[in-house]
Amino acid sequence: MSETPDNVVQTVRTYIDQHRADFLDELAEWLRIPSVSAQPDHAEDVRRSARWLAAKLSDTGFTTVEIWETGDGAGAPAVFAEWPSGDADAPTVLVYGHHDVQPAAREDGWHTDPFEPHVVDGRMYARGAADDKGQVFFHTLGVRAHLAATGRTAPAVNLKLIVEGEEESGSPHFRDLVEAHAARLAADVVIVSDTGMWSEDTPTVCTGMRGVADCEIELYGPDQDIHSGSFGGAVPNPATVAGRIVAALHDEDERVAVPGFYDGVTELSAAERALIAELPFDEAAWLNTAKSHGTLGEAGFSTLERVWARPTAEVNGIGGGYQGPGGKTVVPASAQLKLSFRLVAGQDPAKIELAVRDWLDGLVPAGIRYDIVFGAPTRPCLTPLDHPALRAVAGAMSRAFDGATVRFTREGGSGPAADLQDVLGAPVLFLGISVPSDGWHAPNEKVELDLLMKGVETTAHLWGDLPAAVPAAAPQR
Amino acid sequence: MSETPDNVVQTVRTYIDQHRADFLDELAEWLRIPSVSAQPDHAEDVRRSARWLAAKLSDTGFTTVEIWETGDGAGAPAVFAEWPSGDADAPTVLVYGHHDVQPAAREDGWHTDPFEPHVVDGRMYARGAADDKGQVFFHTLGVRAHLAATGRTAPAVNLKLIVEGEEESGSPHFRDLVEAHAARLAADVVIVSDTGMWSEDTPTVCTGMRGVADCEIELYGPDQDIHSGSFGGAVPNPATVAGRIVAALHDEDERVAVPGFYDGVTELSAAERALIAELPFDEAAWLNTAKSHGTLGEAGFSTLERVWARPTAEVNGIGGGYQGPGGKTVVPASAQLKLSFRLVAGQDPAKIELAVRDWLDGLVPAGIRYDIVFGAPTRPCLTPLDHPALRAVAGAMSRAFDGATVRFTREGGSGPAADLQDVLGAPVLFLGISVPSDGWHAPNEKVELDLLMKGVETTAHLWGDLPAAVPAAAPQR
Repeated sequence: MSETPDNVVQTVRTYIDQHRADFLDELAEWLRIPSVSAQPDHAEDVRRSARWLAAKLSDTGFTTVEIWETGDGAGAPAVFAEWPSGDADAPTVLVYGHHDVQPAAREDGWHTDPFEPHVVDGRMYARGAADDKGQVFFHTLGVRAHLAATGRTAPAVNLKLIVEGEEESGSPHFRDLVEAHAARLAADVVIVSDTGMWSEDTPTVCTGMRGVADCEIELYGPDQDIHSGSFGGAVPNPATVAGRIVAALHDEDERVAVPGFYDGVTELSAAERALIAELPFDEAAWLNTAKSHGTLGEAGFSTLERVWARPTAEVNGIGGGYQGPGGKTVVPASAQLKLSFRLVAGQDPAKIELAVRDWLDGLVPAGIRYDIVFGAPTRPCLTPLDHPALRAVAGAMSRAFDGATVRFTREGGSGPAADLQDVLGAPVLFLGISVPSDGWHAPNEKVELDLLMKGVETTAHLWGDLPAAVPAAAPQR
Repeated sequence: MSETPDNVVQTVRTYIDQHRADFLDELAEWLRIPSVSAQPDHAEDVRRSARWLAAKLSDTGFTTVEIWETGDGAGAPAVFAEWPSGDADAPTVLVYGHHDVQPAAREDGWHTDPFEPHVVDGRMYARGAADDKGQVFFHTLGVRAHLAATGRTAPAVNLKLIVEGEEESGSPHFRDLVEAHAARLAADVVIVSDTGMWSEDTPTVCTGMRGVADCEIELYGPDQDIHSGSFGGAVPNPATVAGRIVAALHDEDERVAVPGFYDGVTELSAAERALIAELPFDEAAWLNTAKSHGTLGEAGFSTLERVWARPTAEVNGIGGGYQGPGGKTVVPASAQLKLSFRLVAGQDPAKIELAVRDWLDGLVPAGIRYDIVFGAPTRPCLTPLDHPALRAVAGAMSRAFDGATVRFTREGGSGPAADLQDVLGAPVLFLGISVPSDGWHAPNEKVELDLLMKGVETTAHLWGDLPAAVPAAAPQR
């Protein structure tokens, strides 16, 4: 798969080699700021992290750099930066990342201080090294390498960055932020750098994420727990009803049995199924990552297809009656269910909610009252395999990886990226160089420094390649 | 239904009228002892209560009175008393009751001190007035009235009493006690005075209780809660499996769907169904007592048949995954179920346990590990409607109630009475004069004094009637 690097590849690599040490020193400086958004006593650190990044983006050359408050100042700030191309027909790219990190403490099992970066064997260990500071920060060196390789003074694309500060807290203000600044964020392509690739040896681009709709169901039976000897077998039991609802979620082929659930689902093409089948999937290793002891899912689909491209219904929580030690012979007064539905392209969360409500109504017997409350849904996002921006990302990545074939993955989870697709109406691509062993949210998180440089290289090429691939459509201000 | 009272009835009533005031004073004295077995700081009160009763039974004329320790002295004591007939062919009767009471505190809603008995409008209010001191104590006046009416110096039956001190704490040592003293407790008939009757206007005798077998099921999936986006839809979810187990408990007719569950069940006869149907059952009032808002149960049976005479499966508790506020998108690591099965005559708890284990094993998919643990079962007990002892009890009660028709009920719950049937091999009859409004386990518990005297009258007749009805079979020592 290797080929002789062309001149641009060589120029980019030379530039990166010259700046790698400084780049890593600066990244380490950023990683020393414990920007833990979930912990109120780190709120000022998150603000400091935003200011640090803003200053660094100005140094890099971004002509506009702003710190955007969220939640009327009650949330953690995001950083917005913009560097116009100057070319009339240049497409606009919006890069998404986040500067907050997961909590970390030495006693959780870290071998070294999580906020004192530590390089061993080509890996930098620190909280946020991969998720997501390292992957945000490669864009600074990437755009400089792009300029160096092309001799330009501004990028060939209108480059925008939005780096939020609350991703590890569930992005509670992100949708509002995007809606409030939709005009400023307008783009032809969104590049999310907050994911990973298949493995060190298999560069991949993620093409979509599942959406999610979740609900809580409360079932009410007797006014209080009642004696199951005196009354059991003659009155409806809300815990039994909860179980029956759970059982009715799926048919015997493990397909979701809510009528209308699959309406509009974008089915996997034969071509994409073939590409997924070609990935070097090791079920035992996957089960180990899943900490699970067996596979079970929709008949007719592989494990990867099930988690990437098929909608699901999952029981996240169930409770009712006596849960303490020993037994207690009661008919419980109430029972609760927390369900979530992962959605794929073509499914509309609003229609799913209606379908679930109708389905539930037919399952609850007389004598049981129920409430159902849905949370704010996240839409699915998916970019078709033949989308020119996706081909451009894959091509740039292939150059960075010495001509290796770039494969395609999807992400089973759901994230704020869908808000960008939703509000901005732009395709979302996922460019990440993290690998499964990086330990996101775990002790001893690290990033592979050679892969980090591959991220730099990929963007250096991508900004040069995109103008030919993607026509400008986003309104320029 | 009324008839002219015969001489014996009149003699008994006269005797009771003469002794009623003293009897009630003595009962009040006993009720002042707060023999709350569930509260360790009342342990000495429970012992005092046993000593008080033992002394009173000696005064009454019982020739043997003993205090029996339980749990090697760690439990609360029971009182045993015996008064042999002296007649060679006299049958032996064992009366069961308990001298401990439920907790009670003024602030729970009592209008007066729960341990300072208080008579208003023919009702005595106090903790234990109905459950069970009043119903134990009527046997003291009952046997004296029997002697007065018959001119005997010893009862016409060999009369034994076993009055335990831990019933309100779940009778943890009762089975052991009965097994240890099986020879002393041997009887031809067991009379349990710890229940009630249908209503003030409808005297009834209870003919059986359901048994119960209960189990806890623990289901283990992933080694920890895992992300439902990354893995959901591809691995088995223990909360989903818990729901499917619950749903599989019953068929669409609400019959228990565990194979073999109904094997051996003693079906209701057409005669007993007709008698049950004649009871003045008010569904709205029953639902009010059940604090429930609808009926649901095995097709083809009425509500009373369902709770009295049909075996059931009930979910007492269910839990798994995230049960806090809001949502959390996990596939839970584990889920738990607490199930109980009410059993009727003809069902063997050991066989039910095996049937449930087999059934469960077929429901748990690969990748889910499970444990199932059964508690100690309680057997069902049932005395056939044509049993001569039952006819004798109904006849005695009818005389006490001025010739009213005595009807038959059953009790849906399960209790230590089954241990007596089980160990002693004697039929168990339930003679109680409490009514649903007496407020067992609730504030302002009371007993209707006129009904209490009907209990006295009933036993006064019963001890005279039983020798002709029931042949002596229990070995005499």
